[in-house]
Formats: sequence, C-alpha cells, structure tokens
Amino acid sequence: MDSPITRLIKQLTTLPGIGEKTAERLAYSLIERDRESVEDLARAIVDAKDKVVKCKKCNNYSYSEICEICSNPDRDHSIICVVEFPRDVMAMEKAEGYNGLYHVLYGALSSMREVRGVRQNIEHLVRRVEEDKIREVVVATSINVPGEITANFIKELLPEIRVTRIGYGIPVGGEIDFYDSLTIKTALQNRKEI
Amino acid sequence: MDSPITRLIKQLTTLPGIGEKTAERLAYSLIERDRESVEDLARAIVDAKDKVVKCKKCNNYSYSEICEICSNPDRDHSIICVVEFPRDVMAMEKAEGYNGLYHVLYGALSSMREVRGVRQNIEHLVRRVEEDKIREVVVATSINVPGEITANFIKELLPEIRVTRIGYGIPVGGEIDFYDSLTIKTALQNRKEI
Repeated sequence: MDSPITRLIKQLTTLPGIGEKTAERLAYSLIERDRESVEDLARAIVDAKDKVVKCKKCNNYSYSEICEICSNPDRDHSIICVVEFPRDVMAMEKAEGYNGLYHVLYGALSSMREVRGVRQNIEHLVRRVEEDKIREVVVATSINVPGEITANFIKELLPEIRVTRIGYGIPVGGEIDFYDSLTIKTALQNRKEI
Repeated sequence: MDSPITRLIKQLTTLPGIGEKTAERLAYSLIERDRESVEDLARAIVDAKDKVVKCKKCNNYSYSEICEICSNPDRDHSIICVVEFPRDVMAMEKAEGYNGLYHVLYGALSSMREVRGVRQNIEHLVRRVEEDKIREVVVATSINVPGEITANFIKELLPEIRVTRIGYGIPVGGEIDFYDSLTIKTALQNRKEI
C-alpha cells in the first residue's frame, strides 16, 4: 500500500495539467502548512462539489434551482449566449460586455461521434427560445470545427430568430505575425470601417 | 460571502505555482467529477498532513519515529547526504545512485538573515555525525549562494571527517550553449579524463 504522501501525489496528478513534478511540489507544500489551512482546502473542495447544482434554465453551475443570472431582473431576458462550458460564462462575465442570459452545452457537437448530452442541451435551448420568446441567440462556442458545427446546427434549428456568432479575429493586444493564416484571413474578412 | 466555487478557486490559488486561471480550471474539473473521487482527494490531503511526522534522526518526512531509510540495515550508515528539503531526498532516491543516509535542513543558511531552524538542524547533524561515527558527509544543498554558505559552514563544523560537495556542471542531456557562463566555467574546472 502506498504511503500517505505517495497517495496524495497520485491523487494530485489526476487533476488536469498537474504532472508528477508539480504534484510533488504541491504535496510537500501542503505538508508544510498548518493543519487548519489544509482542512480549509479539503473542505472547499468537497463543498464546491456538494453545493453546486445545474441551473434548470441555463445549465450553468448554480447554488439554487435557478441561477443568479437567470433570476436577475436587471439582465436582458430576450438574448441568450450559448457557450460550451461554465468557465466560458465566467470569462464572459469578467469581460463585462454582455448583459443577457446564457446557455451552457457542456461541450460541442462533433462530426466524428455522437455527443448525446450536448444534443439534449441544444434541444433544451430550442424549447427555451420558444417558451421565453428569445429574440437573439449569440453562439460563443470555440472557434474550431466542433464549435462551428454546433453554431451551424443551432442556426438550422432556429430559423425564425436572429442567430449570431461572436466575432473572429486577432485578439486584443495580439501582434499580427504571431497568429496563423486562417486567423489573419478571417480577421481581414471581418474588417470594419474605422 | 463568496460562493463555494469562488471559495474553492481562492483556496487553490494559495498553492504554489497555481494562478487564478489554473485554479479556475482545477475547480471546474473537480465539480465535474463524481463525489467519491472528490472525497478521495480531500481525504488524501488531510491524511498526508496528519500522518506525516519528521524522522528523529534525519528530519525527513516519516510515518514513524525513525524513517524507513534511517531504519534500513541494508543502507550504508556511515555516510550522510545533507539536503535542503524532503523533495530533494525523493529526487536522490529516484536517481538510485546513493545508498547512504540523509539529513534534511529545511532550507539553507543566508548571509542576509538568521535562519534559526536551519542552524538547529545543522547542529543536530554535527551531533549525529559524532554519535553515529559517520565517515563522510556529502553536501547536496542547492548550487547557489545560500547552498554554498551552508556547505562551507558544515565543512568548518566538521574538520575531522570527509565533507564533500555534489558535482557541479552541465546537466545530463544539457546543450552547452543553453547554460550560463558560471555553469560552463565550473563544468570546465570539474573536467575529468575520458
């Protein structure tokens, strides 16, 4: 049987992006901490798992049946931004450029394999658009093949309303020569009058 | 008060080398796991903290009063390798080139400030060398100023026995031009007949 340190290191390497070296460093730093701070971390991990549910309306992480965004009367309830993951909602909220609602798909469609959960979440989106009289759906899935497939699929399912795609281009602060040809070409096609 | 996810993200950013972006990614991946696996991680964290003590002989992490290395009769009990941290012991053991004992200082001496814990651990080393009739001390502290100060200090305190320093040079697999002048100069001084 593994020792407690080895067990902790193995557990930490199951986290995304944490290799063995990093896991060792983390394990040793945890052992050097006082017990209370170690317990706080352990409790925060279990707590987040236990208290988080998915919002009945938008599927985003929530602490109640309907999340804070969906139940906020100050937000524009006629527009929905479709994203792949809850972390995308967090990124959009941080950017502070959007005041509508969200719909989280937990992935994107693929031409290679069935993605049943994502399909169900898209069907849920379609029902929601009809029931809640949504006037626009902004598709903010990733700028890659599955993201595009998903965007086109949503557009086909919602012929009656405005379906938009977030803008493509060079990121703010980006130096042109750092980006690939496709990004540059798309940025050129998406050019605007100054 | 912060939400459980925000609290978890904040807790994770207290870990060394974990920035906010990484903490977010980790938090979301934890929420997506099943509860049992989340509990396993939380338990492993508290367990490692609770069960680990410091070996009475060498100060390394241990699960009993005397650690497995110090109590192993197959190891050479006449040689001690001095390292800064338990992770250094783990790295040495993985390298499998050493069969003696260790002594962990939990840091190195500094010319800038008092490092009381480290000094006490060095005094402990000196007593150990005398009591256990050690014939050689290999100082494997870091190759930097505190590491050198520590090595020289140990040498002064132990004039009667052989005190050695691990070899300096270009790491195995290292390309010469990647390293700084001092490393290259030292590697030249440490050259050996082929």
